[in-house]
Amino acid sequence: MVYTVAIAGASGYAGGEVLRLLAAHPEFEVRTVTANKNAGQRLIDVQPHLRSYASLVLQKTDVETLKGHDVVFLALPHGHSGALAAELGDASLVIDCGADHRLTSASAWETFYKSEYHGSWPYGLPELVLADGGKQRSNLEGVSRIAVPGCNVTAVSLGLAPGLRAGVIQPVDLVAVLAVGPSGAGKTLRTDLLASEMLGSAHAYGVGGVHRHVPEIVQNLSGASGETVTVSFTPVLVPMARGIIATSTARLEPGVSPADVRSAWELAYSDEPFVHLLPEGQFPRVADTLGANTALIGIAVDEAAERVVTVTALDNLVKGTAGAAIQSANIALGIPEQTGLAVNGVAP
Amino acid sequence: MVYTVAIAGASGYAGGEVLRLLAAHPEFEVRTVTANKNAGQRLIDVQPHLRSYASLVLQKTDVETLKGHDVVFLALPHGHSGALAAELGDASLVIDCGADHRLTSASAWETFYKSEYHGSWPYGLPELVLADGGKQRSNLEGVSRIAVPGCNVTAVSLGLAPGLRAGVIQPVDLVAVLAVGPSGAGKTLRTDLLASEMLGSAHAYGVGGVHRHVPEIVQNLSGASGETVTVSFTPVLVPMARGIIATSTARLEPGVSPADVRSAWELAYSDEPFVHLLPEGQFPRVADTLGANTALIGIAVDEAAERVVTVTALDNLVKGTAGAAIQSANIALGIPEQTGLAVNGVAP
Amino acid sequence: MVYTVAIAGASGYAGGEVLRLLAAHPEFEVRTVTANKNAGQRLIDVQPHLRSYASLVLQKTDVETLKGHDVVFLALPHGHSGALAAELGDASLVIDCGADHRLTSASAWETFYKSEYHGSWPYGLPELVLADGGKQRSNLEGVSRIAVPGCNVTAVSLGLAPGLRAGVIQPVDLVAVLAVGPSGAGKTLRTDLLASEMLGSAHAYGVGGVHRHVPEIVQNLSGASGETVTVSFTPVLVPMARGIIATSTARLEPGVSPADVRSAWELAYSDEPFVHLLPEGQFPRVADTLGANTALIGIAVDEAAERVVTVTALDNLVKGTAGAAIQSANIALGIPEQTGLAVNGVAP
Amino acid sequence: MVYTVAIAGASGYAGGEVLRLLAAHPEFEVRTVTANKNAGQRLIDVQPHLRSYASLVLQKTDVETLKGHDVVFLALPHGHSGALAAELGDASLVIDCGADHRLTSASAWETFYKSEYHGSWPYGLPELVLADGGKQRSNLEGVSRIAVPGCNVTAVSLGLAPGLRAGVIQPVDLVAVLAVGPSGAGKTLRTDLLASEMLGSAHAYGVGGVHRHVPEIVQNLSGASGETVTVSFTPVLVPMARGIIATSTARLEPGVSPADVRSAWELAYSDEPFVHLLPEGQFPRVADTLGANTALIGIAVDEAAERVVTVTALDNLVKGTAGAAIQSANIALGIPEQTGLAVNGVAP
Repeated sequence: MVYTVAIAGASGYAGGEVLRLLAAHPEFEVRTVTANKNAGQRLIDVQPHLRSYASLVLQKTDVETLKGHDVVFLALPHGHSGALAAELGDASLVIDCGADHRLTSASAWETFYKSEYHGSWPYGLPELVLADGGKQRSNLEGVSRIAVPGCNVTAVSLGLAPGLRAGVIQPVDLVAVLAVGPSGAGKTLRTDLLASEMLGSAHAYGVGGVHRHVPEIVQNLSGASGETVTVSFTPVLVPMARGIIATSTARLEPGVSPADVRSAWELAYSDEPFVHLLPEGQFPRVADTLGANTALIGIAVDEAAERVVTVTALDNLVKGTAGAAIQSANIALGIPEQTGLAVNGVAP
Repeated sequence: MVYTVAIAGASGYAGGEVLRLLAAHPEFEVRTVTANKNAGQRLIDVQPHLRSYASLVLQKTDVETLKGHDVVFLALPHGHSGALAAELGDASLVIDCGADHRLTSASAWETFYKSEYHGSWPYGLPELVLADGGKQRSNLEGVSRIAVPGCNVTAVSLGLAPGLRAGVIQPVDLVAVLAVGPSGAGKTLRTDLLASEMLGSAHAYGVGGVHRHVPEIVQNLSGASGETVTVSFTPVLVPMARGIIATSTARLEPGVSPADVRSAWELAYSDEPFVHLLPEGQFPRVADTLGANTALIGIAVDEAAERVVTVTALDNLVKGTAGAAIQSANIALGIPEQTGLAVNGVAP
Repeated sequence: MVYTVAIAGASGYAGGEVLRLLAAHPEFEVRTVTANKNAGQRLIDVQPHLRSYASLVLQKTDVETLKGHDVVFLALPHGHSGALAAELGDASLVIDCGADHRLTSASAWETFYKSEYHGSWPYGLPELVLADGGKQRSNLEGVSRIAVPGCNVTAVSLGLAPGLRAGVIQPVDLVAVLAVGPSGAGKTLRTDLLASEMLGSAHAYGVGGVHRHVPEIVQNLSGASGETVTVSFTPVLVPMARGIIATSTARLEPGVSPADVRSAWELAYSDEPFVHLLPEGQFPRVADTLGANTALIGIAVDEAAERVVTVTALDNLVKGTAGAAIQSANIALGIPEQTGLAVNGVAP
Repeated sequence: MVYTVAIAGASGYAGGEVLRLLAAHPEFEVRTVTANKNAGQRLIDVQPHLRSYASLVLQKTDVETLKGHDVVFLALPHGHSGALAAELGDASLVIDCGADHRLTSASAWETFYKSEYHGSWPYGLPELVLADGGKQRSNLEGVSRIAVPGCNVTAVSLGLAPGLRAGVIQPVDLVAVLAVGPSGAGKTLRTDLLASEMLGSAHAYGVGGVHRHVPEIVQNLSGASGETVTVSFTPVLVPMARGIIATSTARLEPGVSPADVRSAWELAYSDEPFVHLLPEGQFPRVADTLGANTALIGIAVDEAAERVVTVTALDNLVKGTAGAAIQSANIALGIPEQTGLAVNGVAP
């Protein structure tokens, strides 16, 4: 079967990446692309890397244009998806790459996003382990709405959740520091995102618990742990266009052996097609995941510091956004989960 | 007065940076440069950026060549400085940019360096606060031997020491994750240091407490705290030639206010010429420190996570190595400490 | 039909990229991978981005291991493919990613490669226009040996050949200057290829007509022109892992209009799936081609300078090497030419 | 003597670099900094790398603020310096880092800048050789107005002028292709200057003779040659914050030997403190010049192509802008020319 697809926000990085990936997906057919500022232009003039879509013209982002497709990917600024989705109806599978429906807590939403809360949708991180012993995957089957996780959130959640569920690490004093590329911030004209500012440099932002990804990380890790976690989260922008490498550390539970630790992650990921635990002593490179829907994880136990250190690498635009969107769509529609998604990174 | 200078290991990155900085130092005169592999070549053919040294030729690194200079900078691989220094005598100020004499614990040396211990030298981090209320600066006046700190160590130590001395953060569960450029690894032919491997990528190394900078960080922070600290330390190589940005976090002591926290760092650094605390809400960029002997620090209190987060940026080859060497030499010789050292970074 | 495949030199960049691309090719099945230095290791431990090949182990590169496969890709240092190919027999399609069989002139080979000449194989640049009005594609159908072009050569040849064949530019005073990423030099431990040396820097090499790609460019462009061309060629290494952007310029023939110029390139490439002429006023970005088998070309006429300027971007490891190899293999075997090859670049 | 200094446009890259360099200049004292958008802010909050200027506050850019200083550096967008300079009077040395007074031809100005022409000022490229056998240096002594050259222009002019003056290369079919960093475009919010767009990529701009630096290059090279030259000029943006590497090629005059070629450049630059000809077979790296007022040139003769190839590297913000401004100011004021200017690059 072939599903018709529309992408809203096709002129941005997330929308562009959905399109790039869909070109290799045999069961999705892109019919419609929209973008407000660039409506009327050829897609290929705005996204000149999307050579296979030479015939598409960007249309205005509105309900009339989007409705009637089997699948609608929304890659819009925060605050736009709720109203659109309401009018699209349940016949369409709507996948929101933005933040609007990620948080289950209205107060967390209001604190961090300073705007009206619109409720949560099924959360598109299939590999996330849950305190009840299951995984998030099962909550995505047959749904008509999916909220794609934040890219940094995916890296930290995949890195720490198995240890929390297994009880080998403590739910407090979690610390995550990420080196991230600027494409996660979108095609945004900000001085600190200029090449002149970023080449040869690096800088932290959202320091001290104020980043909007914090409540989402807390939500995921608390869901894995069964207890409310506390986490210190700091992203550092570094000069690579894409990619995230998250160093996430946690206090070792007393009496837990390094083998117990490794078992917790093996149990979580040994059968996963897109999340791979590396052998003892190996740690991932960002390049190994570029362009692929793969997250790679290395773990170590620091016995002197009594902490577990996990290092997770992924491509923020693929496993962190567009790949997660398509993977979740596959699950929702009953298509084999790996369809259309590469696992091999574009390295070097 | 003009001091005569020899630099051993002048063909490497650290030795080259000592030379670059000394070109602006009015009281040091470089007479001799040595390098084993490149002995006999013109310095400028090996280090073509050092235009002002067109007349120097690299000599063999041995005692005969180095002795008789007022100041000798050693920028050699680990294990070479002890024997050399013994033969140079106390008339020369010997400054070791390598690790040989940094650690005061023989057992820590043997555990991490797997080689014979040769004792420690006065430690060249003048701004390091000490549990007794002083600073390391006073231990450098008039000495004839100086051990220059490791570059990552400087970033983490400057970031956390003030809070430990002031008792506003706890000495356990310290976590430091650094984004670092490859020049800290030297001009070493290793596959993972190739441009093809690093451009567009990032990778952690020395994960899980095995990096040689760990005991040195513990030494410094324990010296500031008065208690033995535990620290989880992870460096992540990112694609910038130089620079370190260290995100160092610690548990807030119960009952401590954000104002107390800020006061601790202000007290430590308000009079320092080369270590600057940024205003509330500001965090440093690596580029602000490039080529300069400056460390910039931003701090935040994450009240939800009950942790203090400090972000420290510096140039690993300047404040992290060659600048620290010259600053410490200035102190040892009674030259005004800022002589020959720039504070303004080469940005953008 | 499924063809069995062996890759020799699978631990390098070119061999790795052949593997990455073949993972998406439905008619090729990789059976064997070889590498001398890493023989005995798992492929995935040497090339950790190639997640889909977890079961493959690197074997020794020799005839016994390679023979018996329908297709053998050789990604070896220069000088190794001739003898191997001789023993593989004509039943195998042998595709050499190296230089050994690119040049048709023995004297050019001996001058530039300083070694014995082993003859030439059909040249794997299907889109290359020929003076007789055809294209190189037709010379690849049904062959059992293919020499994959040099990556820089492909960029310059695609950029200038149409104008030479059409007679709108002159065959003398051709000038090509390229910005290229270091992966074209392979996984080679050379100081000038270290990340510390390349990040934030750029340098030319092979200046003054001594680069080995010069005779190959002359061969291709002379073949398009019908006359022997002269070309000044300078590659400049810049800090991007992959990619080539070639600025190739030529004297305008007197009396030729800008429309005539554009027509020459349109005629050559309007039906090509992998070589796209951009609209007037547009010029390609390297990122538009990354990971894809696409070459993008922009052209302009500089009337004051009386020269035509063409700008060609491509990924040196795909259209410049591994993609060209697979595209040529498809043609040789009668598989549809685009099989297994992406056209959309991994941007941003 | 100490000269008082004002810098207009101190919030931008060029103005910031003037400030960085002046911190090491013993005879200039910065009194005033201006910037329109950021007026009222502390300089250090806008340019956090300029640590030594902690006490300066940005003022509005107007005549009242700027007048009364011995030296005024203008680092403003095009079109602003003429009117300001007219009101500052001849008692101030006014140095324009912008383009307004570079071109001696009104028609060239109007064609390329599409605005009213305001005349030319003495041109701040001291090392430029002139057809009459002199150098531009002599035209700067004692002047009260200086037009700082365009950064790309300096690289191409220094690369080709000696050969034109000496008559060893032909004045037609000159071709220059440059790899340049984005800081030359200023702190400008343009999508193509975003880090996400530039990291891992490269793109040409101003292709086909339309770049504003073309008439300025023609002016300089015609001045060296004595004949009007034709030049094809293409800049390619590459991912390094600063730096230019210009590959400039020219037809060899018949009968000229490689030794004659080398002599032409040696004659021009053997005594220059800031422009260095590299030995035979050496070519410059951008990093060798970063932060320094140095231009490095390598040359080769391509006998097969009958062309001379010159490769020039420099830092666009130093020798390309702020360093040239200070060097020229030194000459104008009779200060030793090298005062306050480093020659050693910040490498690696």
